[in-house]
Amino acid sequence: MHIRIVRYAIKIGYDGSHFNGFAMQPGKKTVEGEILKRLIKTKMIENRKQCKFQYAARTDKGVSAFGNVIALNAKVNPAKVLQGMEDIWVTGYAIVEKNFNPRHASYKIYRYYLPNEGYDVEKIKKAAELFEGEHDFSSFARKDSRNTRRKIYRVEVKERKAGEVIKIDFIAPSFLWNQVRRMVAALAAVGKERASIEDIKEALNGKRVNFGLMEARNLVLLDVIYDIKFKRILPGQLAVKKEIYKDAFDYISNATHSWNVGFRKPVE
Amino acid sequence: MHIRIVRYAIKIGYDGSHFNGFAMQPGKKTVEGEILKRLIKTKMIENRKQCKFQYAARTDKGVSAFGNVIALNAKVNPAKVLQGMEDIWVTGYAIVEKNFNPRHASYKIYRYYLPNEGYDVEKIKKAAELFEGEHDFSSFARKDSRNTRRKIYRVEVKERKAGEVIKIDFIAPSFLWNQVRRMVAALAAVGKERASIEDIKEALNGKRVNFGLMEARNLVLLDVIYDIKFKRILPGQLAVKKEIYKDAFDYISNATHSWNVGFRKPVE
Repeated sequence: MHIRIVRYAIKIGYDGSHFNGFAMQPGKKTVEGEILKRLIKTKMIENRKQCKFQYAARTDKGVSAFGNVIALNAKVNPAKVLQGMEDIWVTGYAIVEKNFNPRHASYKIYRYYLPNEGYDVEKIKKAAELFEGEHDFSSFARKDSRNTRRKIYRVEVKERKAGEVIKIDFIAPSFLWNQVRRMVAALAAVGKERASIEDIKEALNGKRVNFGLMEARNLVLLDVIYDIKFKRILPGQLAVKKEIYKDAFDYISNATHSWNVGFRKPVE
Repeated sequence: MHIRIVRYAIKIGYDGSHFNGFAMQPGKKTVEGEILKRLIKTKMIENRKQCKFQYAARTDKGVSAFGNVIALNAKVNPAKVLQGMEDIWVTGYAIVEKNFNPRHASYKIYRYYLPNEGYDVEKIKKAAELFEGEHDFSSFARKDSRNTRRKIYRVEVKERKAGEVIKIDFIAPSFLWNQVRRMVAALAAVGKERASIEDIKEALNGKRVNFGLMEARNLVLLDVIYDIKFKRILPGQLAVKKEIYKDAFDYISNATHSWNVGFRKPVE
């Protein structure tokens, strides 16, 4: 009997606060490490190399994701055995071409959750536009060997209500190391009038400016987009987690006493 | 100079998935362990005994809380040094009597988040009423030395929309070990017609019935209530976490493609 080996792309999400980053590290709990452990334990794969394991983004320690993408060769759909994992959610899968490499995305979307501590949001919006298009992002990247000339398709600043979390989305075919967290640091500086629009312009025109680095835990890799239609999976535990965090926020911010949250007076 | 030592009650919340339960255990990350470590490191206290450290509820591994309560003696308010902790949120504090023991609460509120996998919610509501009042809960507790005759003030079943998570609140002066998770298992069995209202009645009238035990990660200690007014604190990170989980759920459940979630087509 001949069993066909197929290449699968699997979308995964995770709460970054549970892991020491994405990439495997000996003795540390990482997203990649946990996934490979599970795939080997369930005999889906022999090892990382044999199944041609690849991923879209190597997110840093603390960074979360809704739609990072891994790819591997397997005889049956590995999404199932990955579904029961703790703190890693399988959110979709697709059968892909033999040579599919998730690194080569049409674009990636990152979202930064900026707690609004009195920012001038209009200023942030104005500054955000400067990042769109092609620029030298050397002031907005941790140095590595890669070319710092990059293109950003779009930056969107979303604020539903004053005082709430400001969401800043970045859409680009690829990002440099720490680029989003450094761009947001620049935007935050402008929003607090610690830096000017001019400072960002100069930084994008070759001047080296260090605007700082925002914390990792507020950053989410929202999605990685290809010309592929993924079959979506909604992980059940996510509905519970969403409700718990919503209630935690509502309960703690509104309650002065539990009567206020809808309980009738208890029967004595 | 004489510095007055004062007893503080501090409300704390935590996501249970980050800890091996509340109670301290050598070599394991627990809520109590992390708190004591922090208090000792910041020289707030010398050790557990010296400060008369006490807590309201020893929640099991996986269980979360919005308002568990600890109490300790200190020279200055310990809420501040606990505020910067990872995965533990200080949500309020109060200065209390020298002999305050958080174990002695007016009542506690637990909430169970039951993912609605096709339950008959009306049946669950009907069965939930049976638990109110005073009963022998020996069928709904992991055995320990305590008296199983207990009083429940109220059980409330909340369902906003069909298909969503059902929230079941339990209000009582005290709970037996695993009691909420066992009561919910019985309600779930009735809601799936694996057990009848009669079965619960019989169990509350002395017959030993094992309805099973629901998983810990969907259980939250919502609050512990005393005749004390706590000064509330809203932890900033909670707003971000709430937004991340809300977006994760919305994004993963609605999106078939990112254009659908409000992005304009990127500039090429």
